[in-house]
Amino acid sequence: MFRTAELQHKLPKDEYHQQVSQLREDLQMMQMELRNADFPVIVVFAGVDGAGKGETVNKLHEWLDSRWLVTRAFGELSDEERDRPEYWRFWRDLPPRGRIGLFLSSWYSMPILDHVYGHIDLAEFDERLERIKTFEQTLADDGALILKFWMHLSKDAQKERLRKLEKNPLLHWRISKRDWQHWELYESFIAAAERTIMKTSTGLAQWKIIEGYDARYRSAAVATVMRDAIHFRLDEAKTSLASSNEDTDAHASKPASTAIDGLPIITVLSRLDMSKTLSKADYDVALKHYQGKLNQLQRIARERTISTILVFEGWDAAGKGGSIRRITAALDARDYQVIQIAAPTDEEAAHNYLWRFWRHLPRAGRVTIYDRSWYGRVLVERIEGFARTREWQRAYAEINDFEAQLVERGIVLLKFWLHITPDEQLRRFKEREQIAYKAWKLTDEDWRNRDRWADYELAVNDLVERTSTRQAPWTLVEANDKRHARIEILRALCERLGVALGQPEDKFTAAKSKK
Amino acid sequence: MFRTAELQHKLPKDEYHQQVSQLREDLQMMQMELRNADFPVIVVFAGVDGAGKGETVNKLHEWLDSRWLVTRAFGELSDEERDRPEYWRFWRDLPPRGRIGLFLSSWYSMPILDHVYGHIDLAEFDERLERIKTFEQTLADDGALILKFWMHLSKDAQKERLRKLEKNPLLHWRISKRDWQHWELYESFIAAAERTIMKTSTGLAQWKIIEGYDARYRSAAVATVMRDAIHFRLDEAKTSLASSNEDTDAHASKPASTAIDGLPIITVLSRLDMSKTLSKADYDVALKHYQGKLNQLQRIARERTISTILVFEGWDAAGKGGSIRRITAALDARDYQVIQIAAPTDEEAAHNYLWRFWRHLPRAGRVTIYDRSWYGRVLVERIEGFARTREWQRAYAEINDFEAQLVERGIVLLKFWLHITPDEQLRRFKEREQIAYKAWKLTDEDWRNRDRWADYELAVNDLVERTSTRQAPWTLVEANDKRHARIEILRALCERLGVALGQPEDKFTAAKSKK
Repeated sequence: MFRTAELQHKLPKDEYHQQVSQLREDLQMMQMELRNADFPVIVVFAGVDGAGKGETVNKLHEWLDSRWLVTRAFGELSDEERDRPEYWRFWRDLPPRGRIGLFLSSWYSMPILDHVYGHIDLAEFDERLERIKTFEQTLADDGALILKFWMHLSKDAQKERLRKLEKNPLLHWRISKRDWQHWELYESFIAAAERTIMKTSTGLAQWKIIEGYDARYRSAAVATVMRDAIHFRLDEAKTSLASSNEDTDAHASKPASTAIDGLPIITVLSRLDMSKTLSKADYDVALKHYQGKLNQLQRIARERTISTILVFEGWDAAGKGGSIRRITAALDARDYQVIQIAAPTDEEAAHNYLWRFWRHLPRAGRVTIYDRSWYGRVLVERIEGFARTREWQRAYAEINDFEAQLVERGIVLLKFWLHITPDEQLRRFKEREQIAYKAWKLTDEDWRNRDRWADYELAVNDLVERTSTRQAPWTLVEANDKRHARIEILRALCERLGVALGQPEDKFTAAKSKK
Repeated sequence: MFRTAELQHKLPKDEYHQQVSQLREDLQMMQMELRNADFPVIVVFAGVDGAGKGETVNKLHEWLDSRWLVTRAFGELSDEERDRPEYWRFWRDLPPRGRIGLFLSSWYSMPILDHVYGHIDLAEFDERLERIKTFEQTLADDGALILKFWMHLSKDAQKERLRKLEKNPLLHWRISKRDWQHWELYESFIAAAERTIMKTSTGLAQWKIIEGYDARYRSAAVATVMRDAIHFRLDEAKTSLASSNEDTDAHASKPASTAIDGLPIITVLSRLDMSKTLSKADYDVALKHYQGKLNQLQRIARERTISTILVFEGWDAAGKGGSIRRITAALDARDYQVIQIAAPTDEEAAHNYLWRFWRHLPRAGRVTIYDRSWYGRVLVERIEGFARTREWQRAYAEINDFEAQLVERGIVLLKFWLHITPDEQLRRFKEREQIAYKAWKLTDEDWRNRDRWADYELAVNDLVERTSTRQAPWTLVEANDKRHARIEILRALCERLGVALGQPEDKFTAAKSKK
């Protein structure tokens, strides 16, 4: 794989200077145009030590305008990073649309090192590469232009390079024992590199192997590839703009999979027993019990730095707010945060839609409650056509991957869909209209959403089908009776948290919901 | 001071329930109105251990809508926080306009503990309180409503309360040895508390002492004070809106202090020797020298985790970009970031104007270069009337305090004003019009700014007068000759960095600028 990058590619000085002056101008003009583009550019540098990754990045900073360029190198984890899933640090440093981000020792670094050092076997290595693929796919699908450069040196060339650096009084500090240790492991590195490149060269995020032997050659090569790729994408955007009218599909709200033409539609929601109720007396007892239990469990969770994330989705007026309050009443205000998902801020809108959920992930030991969530992508955005068909269709997989990362980090994740019948909703809307301090909760949008009940019901069915995984199942809550719903939610939360903490099962049975 | 808070205030149960139902409704209505207001509410809780700070905050979460409420308790510093000035953690958690932030163990916590434990003497304690005052003043001046509650208990009542908690099997975990240690130090705490309250009760951020003896009393008291204070402010905002037309002053661009009516105006800029130049040969030698030096110094700075912040201000076309590039060329791209200050994002606009500079403060050991900066407040915002007179006038003190905090944290701070003459600017504008890839740099705004040269010159004079402190002096750079300017800047940077790192003085004298 690397043979073509061991040919000692060089660029003579005069040729270099001739090329570079044009290249710089092109790059700067391109960067200006890019500033108004609706996609970010993500450039990943990986490769052999001493192959000039850092020098190349510095060169790019010289040639481009640093004000629109962000370079990130990831070293040891900070304790704030250690408290979150591995990819949090990468998500938070992604460039917004119109900018270029250069990434050194990025998401490829740890998997390769872990494998070469023997900390993880081939199967786990492959899994980590799979995660990378999904990450890049998510970004690329959303429009990000991803360029990946593998900077290569032959084993002899690397040795020569390390020696040279050691001898240079200005640069010898850059060579440590670790570099020579890595050199000893050269073959293992190359094997891991080959596997990495093979497995992660996708159509949307391809590797380009660059020989790092000659500084002039490698800088000019990288810059040229960047210029041409960004230009190509900018031109593409222009042409697609012309044909974009055809692109906005009229079928945005068509069901993904549920409906098979000609066959009757039965959704998971239609099978819920909506007659379940709970008496006031039973409710009071159960509420006290579960709130006490929850309080106790959360104190243990805080101590053990186990976080909980709760997602609340459901029909308008299904009682999300009231259910959330019954949970927070049992918690210490220092331990939780309720996040209301409304329209994104402009910083959020300049990133992938998942960015704003990543950015607010709590430190370890906290409870974060989302009042509406990332599922907006496959609910309101799908139904209203804010997301294109291919966008919301791929969102299921993106969401599953996001949630898998939360669960792998040890976060307890629960997702609730609060279901009410159309009649019950109407009753509550009318009630709200009557009560002054509740009237503000009712908007025209609520009435509009009501008209699209059937579309939403199919969307919910798809959502359950696609995202109720073993690790992160949906809890569908019959919420026509508020008391029943609240206790169901508290019970589910206590059960899951109890299991996660290895606490004895909840023996409480006093308040079984009745038909 | 606390005698009135040792009277065992109580609120009988029935009276409490009667009050609370109204209070809750009021609070929720108020919160709705607040969401559209243009100020944030910052509520600080401090006081005696066991006086119910945490419980009160929990109660507020029950009564208010948690979705528009953020509660923050500050524990041990994370390593990301330790890398920045003390107040970074507070700034980054400030609520945006329209929201309420509840702060537990906030900026008062450490100064009081440090003093009670004898880590800092009275003089230093007072200094820390002074910093708090300035912080709160900055926020209040910008419109933030600040409410501070001191929750008090008599020594006996505290003992009783701690005992009670210890006996409660559900709550005994909350009482640690430390609580009893603090109880032993009760008198010292009270002395520190008195001093704190006396020194930091300002017109805009007053303390309210609340007796914590009875849970019902203290919750109702805090909530009532909050409700009334927020209501008052909301009403005030409505009336001032009506008279706001008079408020926008026509004299926004009038000089603050420089001009004394009838006396001739001489500005610091007028005394610069604009004829200074540097030959190409001298420049080349000096550039190589200082870039090498800078590279070396920054490597040491990185190692010693000493950060550098560079501020670039100056006339349009004064050569800021070119000077910045001569600096970055000497640095490793992993070590620096260039931040271009343009219009704030909507998240930034929802906070105090200094918030966006606080939020991007780098971790230790990095270089951050601001291409334009917080000085926009007293330059463009002043001249164009974007900031009101009182806003830009108080900005000098706010900026001095901000910079003092940077310097105290060990950050090396340099501020450059690049000065050119009007003739030279005109020459450069015309040149830009000719060169395709520079033409985009020239906007109508540049021509407009040029018309206000005299106003800007006075504003710059004020800025130097008010913000050139010993800790953070301005370097005025004669920039008609680009070579001279670039070397001056590099030289100043190397000198300051050298001093900060305790490195031998720079003996380089080959390239003295000539007249």
